[in-house]
Amino acid sequence: MQRRDSLDCFFNPRSIAVVGASPEGSKLSNIILKSLKNAGFSGDIYPINPKYDSIEGLKCHGSLDELEEKVDLALFAMGAPRTVELIKSSVHKLKGVIIISGGFGESGPEGVALEGALRALVNEHPIRIIGPNCLGIYDTASKIDTFFIPAERFTRPARGGLSIISQSGSFALTVMDELASAGIGVSRVVSYGNMVDVSESDCLDYLADDESTSAVAMYIESVSDGKRFVKAAAACSGKKPVIAIKAGRSRVATSAALSHTGAIAGRYELYRAAFRKAGIVEVMGYEDFISGCKVLGLCPPAAGGRVIIITDGGGIGVSIADAAAAGGLDVAPLPAKTAAELKEALPSFCTVGNPLDLTGSATNELYARALEKTLSSGGYDMAIAATLLGPPALTDDLGKTLAGKARPTGKPLIICSPGGEYTKKKNRLFMELGLPVFTSPEGAVRGAKVLARTGKGF
Amino acid sequence: MQRRDSLDCFFNPRSIAVVGASPEGSKLSNIILKSLKNAGFSGDIYPINPKYDSIEGLKCHGSLDELEEKVDLALFAMGAPRTVELIKSSVHKLKGVIIISGGFGESGPEGVALEGALRALVNEHPIRIIGPNCLGIYDTASKIDTFFIPAERFTRPARGGLSIISQSGSFALTVMDELASAGIGVSRVVSYGNMVDVSESDCLDYLADDESTSAVAMYIESVSDGKRFVKAAAACSGKKPVIAIKAGRSRVATSAALSHTGAIAGRYELYRAAFRKAGIVEVMGYEDFISGCKVLGLCPPAAGGRVIIITDGGGIGVSIADAAAAGGLDVAPLPAKTAAELKEALPSFCTVGNPLDLTGSATNELYARALEKTLSSGGYDMAIAATLLGPPALTDDLGKTLAGKARPTGKPLIICSPGGEYTKKKNRLFMELGLPVFTSPEGAVRGAKVLARTGKGF
Repeated sequence: MQRRDSLDCFFNPRSIAVVGASPEGSKLSNIILKSLKNAGFSGDIYPINPKYDSIEGLKCHGSLDELEEKVDLALFAMGAPRTVELIKSSVHKLKGVIIISGGFGESGPEGVALEGALRALVNEHPIRIIGPNCLGIYDTASKIDTFFIPAERFTRPARGGLSIISQSGSFALTVMDELASAGIGVSRVVSYGNMVDVSESDCLDYLADDESTSAVAMYIESVSDGKRFVKAAAACSGKKPVIAIKAGRSRVATSAALSHTGAIAGRYELYRAAFRKAGIVEVMGYEDFISGCKVLGLCPPAAGGRVIIITDGGGIGVSIADAAAAGGLDVAPLPAKTAAELKEALPSFCTVGNPLDLTGSATNELYARALEKTLSSGGYDMAIAATLLGPPALTDDLGKTLAGKARPTGKPLIICSPGGEYTKKKNRLFMELGLPVFTSPEGAVRGAKVLARTGKGF
Repeated sequence: MQRRDSLDCFFNPRSIAVVGASPEGSKLSNIILKSLKNAGFSGDIYPINPKYDSIEGLKCHGSLDELEEKVDLALFAMGAPRTVELIKSSVHKLKGVIIISGGFGESGPEGVALEGALRALVNEHPIRIIGPNCLGIYDTASKIDTFFIPAERFTRPARGGLSIISQSGSFALTVMDELASAGIGVSRVVSYGNMVDVSESDCLDYLADDESTSAVAMYIESVSDGKRFVKAAAACSGKKPVIAIKAGRSRVATSAALSHTGAIAGRYELYRAAFRKAGIVEVMGYEDFISGCKVLGLCPPAAGGRVIIITDGGGIGVSIADAAAAGGLDVAPLPAKTAAELKEALPSFCTVGNPLDLTGSATNELYARALEKTLSSGGYDMAIAATLLGPPALTDDLGKTLAGKARPTGKPLIICSPGGEYTKKKNRLFMELGLPVFTSPEGAVRGAKVLARTGKGF
């Protein structure tokens, strides 16, 4: 069996068993069952528990052995020793296994031994394991959701092209929740935890050739096989943008977890070098990561770092220009011909330059003219439109107008719209059109930088 | 008359005239009248317009000359030439004047000449002028609001201790709107525009001895009298924290406005030096500015940069530690005695270190113990509590519990709580308690840095 094909049981299963399923709403296995149902998984779902006839309206089986065929994917969210015991006794019925349960390697010597037993099973039998100590998979392409956080606490993102691979479950969760709130969809999300078998490299192999995935974002604490990682990442980044964050970059951040700080600090340099070699765009923090996810989830990559800034407020335009310059983007002056055209096309109260300030007298039509002339000038790779929503002539159609001018050029358009409640409400209109919205000049610039770097290796 | 006292007409007027007041809802003068009424100004408000008997329920006067006494503060939001004409003809009736109107120095030679006429009036008569081309004053201490943005588009902040001095009206507006949305109050806000008379230094003089102001945040594009600025700023920063942003730091950001870029780039270095000399903490962007406003509006200054990070999610704790280290804060290890006490006081699943990870099994009580022991240890100047709201045992009382432990220590507590809709809703509970809430590790660190720098000159 091809390694990559062996992951189809996770990303394209026909049947899923929830082992130890419970009808009690407070149990993880119950929440997971509900998550699966809510996600709309169209294959068979088998709750497994000898105590019940049915759970959540699904026929319950007494054990995995009662199933007629092998189950493609089995989920475990029970005590660690019992998990290992059950996998061992029913291994011939299993293909893919996700172990949500903690109490393994992270918790002491007994847990380490249990992980050893799992590794032995993977070596001896044709099964694959994600986890333990993870949240598993959230997949809008195959409609799978193994996350045990109830819907009222965590909004699931809609379908999109961005896939996320994360060693930390809580990091993946927080990012997904924030993306959902920003109207950005995802394709496949994998929280892989302790990595007894399936690694970030396995996931990269899969996603590289996955038609549902247009870009990949990774959260990495540690990589076990550096060479394999560089190979898998390079293959993937050759086909689609890949960004990654290495958590624990600073000595202090890692000193809590590991005593030999000197070694760790050195190790980070190795990660940096590996990212560079593999064509991965490294991002340096949570905000960078979220910004990258937002633009990669919505925009075409930029061909370079030349950005035109169009604004209706002088102060905010200057702030974006300052941030862009500090971030290494090119706030290139208007080409002479374009400047001349714009002086014709715009009223005299506008400041024709970069930033291009339409002032508080801005209208949708002026934004449209400014965006069209600059993006089609050949002088810019993308645009940031700062829209303070004070100007009375701006209407709710502004987003539609801007998107209509940007899309035909194939160049990314980023919205920068800081403010309070009124602004937040109006920003939803931009989001509904699939435009990336940032609420600070620095945020917009973080997004622009990721587009420039993934597009051009800059 | 003392220079400082001469600003009482702006910050403590007994009467305010709105010259050219209109009953039409779309006119700036009408919105300003409504703003003043909504703000609850308790002195006399005089709409001035010969065409009407009353506007917005207030008796209307035909001209300033009809008033029996001098008016403390007169507002103008009409055409530039007419504004100058009216001020000239009624100058004996005026003390403070705010000229909202544009069309002055920023718009060409005719406007420059009009500004010259205004300067002559200030030199010859005992009047003071704020503006032109500004939004004027928003003041929760004296209940004045001259901002012409309707209430439904712009949420006014409640009363607080932070005062803001801004050359850019739109910048001030956006910041205030965002602060209001974060539950943070302000004291006095001045948008001073073209500065024909009252300058940032005049405002600093006033705010230095203003009991309603506990901290000052400034947005500066240019300063006309550098020596006076350093003197005024040093006097103010000796009494309360002062932060400032210089807009147009980069060559590109200023090249649009001014052609001699080399001179400008050099000039920024002069601003940096002036800030340093004056004891002003310079912030480098919009996010930095907002973060500084949030913490200065709510927290005591920190005695230094030693920060304890308490979290319920490993990934987010490491991200905060990475950001703090990158920002030059001291993520100091736990003092040995405190570490020993915490190992006693916390369950074994907690990671006792800095970051201190309470894990997904965190409870309010565990947060309370961790915060109390670390802040009282003598090892830390402030705390960042990262609260991912997934852990089922955390209740809505978490904020109250945390604030109750932090307040007696006199040390700042910053909340870091990233996520989506559920998190945003729960974050309001922290805000209502007067805790500064940031939705990213980097945001929390920006806030912590401003507290450390304003407290210790770090």
